[in-house]
Amino acid sequence: MQALFKRILVNDIQVSPGDAILVGLSGGADSMVLLDVLLHVADSLQLAILAAHLDHGMRPESADDAAFVARFCRRRDVPLTVGHRDVPALARQHKQGLEEAAREARREFLQQTARVEGCRFIALGHHRNDQVETFLHRLLRGSGLSGLAGMRLRSGPFIRPLLSFSRQDILAYLDDHQIPHVEDASNADTVFTRNRLRHELLPRLRDFNPRIEEHLARLSRRIAVEEDYWTEQVDAYLESSCEEGDDGLWLSRQGLTGLHPALRSRVLRGALLRLRGDLRGIGAKHLASLDDLLDAPRSEAEAHLPGVWAARRYERLWLRTAPPPDPTDFAVVVPGPGVYDLPGGGRLSVSLNQGCLGEDRWATEFDADKVPFPLLVRPFRKGDRFYPCGAPGHRKLKDFFIDAKIDREIRRSWPLVVADEILWLPGLRRGHGRWPQTVGGRVLRLVASGLSRPNQSL
Amino acid sequence: MQALFKRILVNDIQVSPGDAILVGLSGGADSMVLLDVLLHVADSLQLAILAAHLDHGMRPESADDAAFVARFCRRRDVPLTVGHRDVPALARQHKQGLEEAAREARREFLQQTARVEGCRFIALGHHRNDQVETFLHRLLRGSGLSGLAGMRLRSGPFIRPLLSFSRQDILAYLDDHQIPHVEDASNADTVFTRNRLRHELLPRLRDFNPRIEEHLARLSRRIAVEEDYWTEQVDAYLESSCEEGDDGLWLSRQGLTGLHPALRSRVLRGALLRLRGDLRGIGAKHLASLDDLLDAPRSEAEAHLPGVWAARRYERLWLRTAPPPDPTDFAVVVPGPGVYDLPGGGRLSVSLNQGCLGEDRWATEFDADKVPFPLLVRPFRKGDRFYPCGAPGHRKLKDFFIDAKIDREIRRSWPLVVADEILWLPGLRRGHGRWPQTVGGRVLRLVASGLSRPNQSL
Repeated sequence: MQALFKRILVNDIQVSPGDAILVGLSGGADSMVLLDVLLHVADSLQLAILAAHLDHGMRPESADDAAFVARFCRRRDVPLTVGHRDVPALARQHKQGLEEAAREARREFLQQTARVEGCRFIALGHHRNDQVETFLHRLLRGSGLSGLAGMRLRSGPFIRPLLSFSRQDILAYLDDHQIPHVEDASNADTVFTRNRLRHELLPRLRDFNPRIEEHLARLSRRIAVEEDYWTEQVDAYLESSCEEGDDGLWLSRQGLTGLHPALRSRVLRGALLRLRGDLRGIGAKHLASLDDLLDAPRSEAEAHLPGVWAARRYERLWLRTAPPPDPTDFAVVVPGPGVYDLPGGGRLSVSLNQGCLGEDRWATEFDADKVPFPLLVRPFRKGDRFYPCGAPGHRKLKDFFIDAKIDREIRRSWPLVVADEILWLPGLRRGHGRWPQTVGGRVLRLVASGLSRPNQSL
Repeated sequence: MQALFKRILVNDIQVSPGDAILVGLSGGADSMVLLDVLLHVADSLQLAILAAHLDHGMRPESADDAAFVARFCRRRDVPLTVGHRDVPALARQHKQGLEEAAREARREFLQQTARVEGCRFIALGHHRNDQVETFLHRLLRGSGLSGLAGMRLRSGPFIRPLLSFSRQDILAYLDDHQIPHVEDASNADTVFTRNRLRHELLPRLRDFNPRIEEHLARLSRRIAVEEDYWTEQVDAYLESSCEEGDDGLWLSRQGLTGLHPALRSRVLRGALLRLRGDLRGIGAKHLASLDDLLDAPRSEAEAHLPGVWAARRYERLWLRTAPPPDPTDFAVVVPGPGVYDLPGGGRLSVSLNQGCLGEDRWATEFDADKVPFPLLVRPFRKGDRFYPCGAPGHRKLKDFFIDAKIDREIRRSWPLVVADEILWLPGLRRGHGRWPQTVGGRVLRLVASGLSRPNQSL
């Protein structure tokens, strides 16, 4: 075991002479063996071995465990850091399960200790059976592929040098070397299912194939390698093709539909992960509903997913954690020339001039004698009609917006300048007629500023 | 069931009005239900439904099955083609298992019938439980990810419209519609394992998770989608970066080591598949041995895999189904000027001239008075030494070859022109000295042709 262990440390984990390794030492069989084997190879590999033990405050006897670990480390001359966390309190505080809270507290404690003690690596005692049991546990729970990815031999500072060894290997070593240990009571939450897996299901599976554990460990390792690949692909895609703003994430529909379905599905998961921070409760049917948004002929539609509001807006997919707030109604009265603040940070400047200065997207001009003050700036109202300049006549403003591919949320809040009828849609179109007189007449000039473009495309 | 079935046919399989569908009809419950449901939706979808039954010649009662199927089709007015194959004989002939031979015979018969009858699709009766049982069967057998990919709803002409339905759904339909059927005895080889899976293992798994079948079916479907993606990626890579010649496959080492480990492993599998036609017996450790060839510092090394000989040759990986043949020794005596055939298709032309014509890679010139005839053309022999032009003295020819990154196989067969010592390595280097006299002397000119470049790089 020691020879293989050494090879794994040097070739696969790539420890270097001078490295300090912090062992997460629960006092259970696995971590005690891990510490012992590390101590045996430490000299020849020039490694410094330290240990850290966290008292989770979850069981009355946990102080005994800490004392046991301390005795052992004193005897073997291993520098030990002992920490205390009230895991049940942390769980309540963060609304987590005990298992999850304990894992987080442990990781945080180990990383902090490694920093303080200057350790490059943190060694954990997971072995092949843990790997296989986790795999089966997740397979039975209905995990997707990502959930079936095995623990990594090395992941950040964490290393698992026992991952290729079976529980039997470890127990044999324990016996041979007479290593004391306490009964491991971590994984309290899953201990029931794990025991059933270990004692009921796995023996059955071994009936079908005596080498099933090897196979499943290898499979989960391979899935882990491919997961890393997918993470790279998805991150690269999102980096280049996902716009992240205050109002959520925006993705190009064309970009997504051009991807292979496998990558598309991964990218959508990745986007949801960015948005929510986790994928809890997100399943195949939710991803299918995003596919539907992208593939359906409707250019505006919404879908509700757990913790996610998704919308197709023409050629874009919009993801938010909640639906956008309803636009607030507003009405800005414009009694005459001046500068008027608009809701949402825009401005309208109104002036009367002799002669024209020219129109553009954000400026328009009318014959002042044909436009009665006061003007009103307000958003869309149901039934609004508009006679766009250049069009053959009046039409529903809603239809005009839709033809221009203006998102629903913009349609509902875009400021319209209204006199006796809608005069101007800043950034979009002026109304028909009321042209300034070519010579000598007074010109009403309207200039909007500070508004974003109404139809942004990716 | 019919509404969902119709939706699957139209939306997912995308049948079109006018399509003819050939049903693979064993007479068992699954295919009988498949035929019945297809007949029910045929009119409204404007589909023509035909059937084909193959008598495998594996059981005495198989003629009864054919007769049963024929009666049913006559009554329901379904055009039926019945075929006969002696599957046991085919299995013997192709050295296959019965199961495999039966599957191949069936596919071939169905495809042929579909061609003759002008059917666009061939419908098979696989359902969700088949999917799940196949998944578990392969998982237990130790399949890699590719083996866990589920059957496709549509794959070439084959469609599986029942794939989303459970065995229960199908049996309920059978009952409701009083559909006659025979006991299905296909899958004879795996029937034992399958029965154990169905009756022993699956009930256990349902104890852990009542919806396990749904989960596993979904998982295998997702794996199938990702398999398609990988196939695309691998094919694209091999298309652009794998040289396929008479002597095997050549891949660039640099190209491979630049790939993500997940893609690299897939590409290596893909290359082996191209080479061998299948991946039987190829496991993780064999792929690891290819990785070793690529990663190790030795620039020439070999590995033996099942049905594959692999070699690193400097910056290339060489894959063959068998080791290259040992080079045959040869000796071509050159008594004087003339043209001499070399083994392997090359030629050496020897002439004596007044004055020089110039040297290049394939031509060299010596002072004729300093080179004694006969010359000898022969391959490398152990202990050969060579004084390369421009070098400070003699050295081992083997070392010269290795410095020039000449593959071992080329080293052993490359023709050397020898007088009292090695004069010339055609295409590589002339020996030191014996330069033609600048004025008036006789010049011995050697020209090699028809030899490939000794150090090809990808």
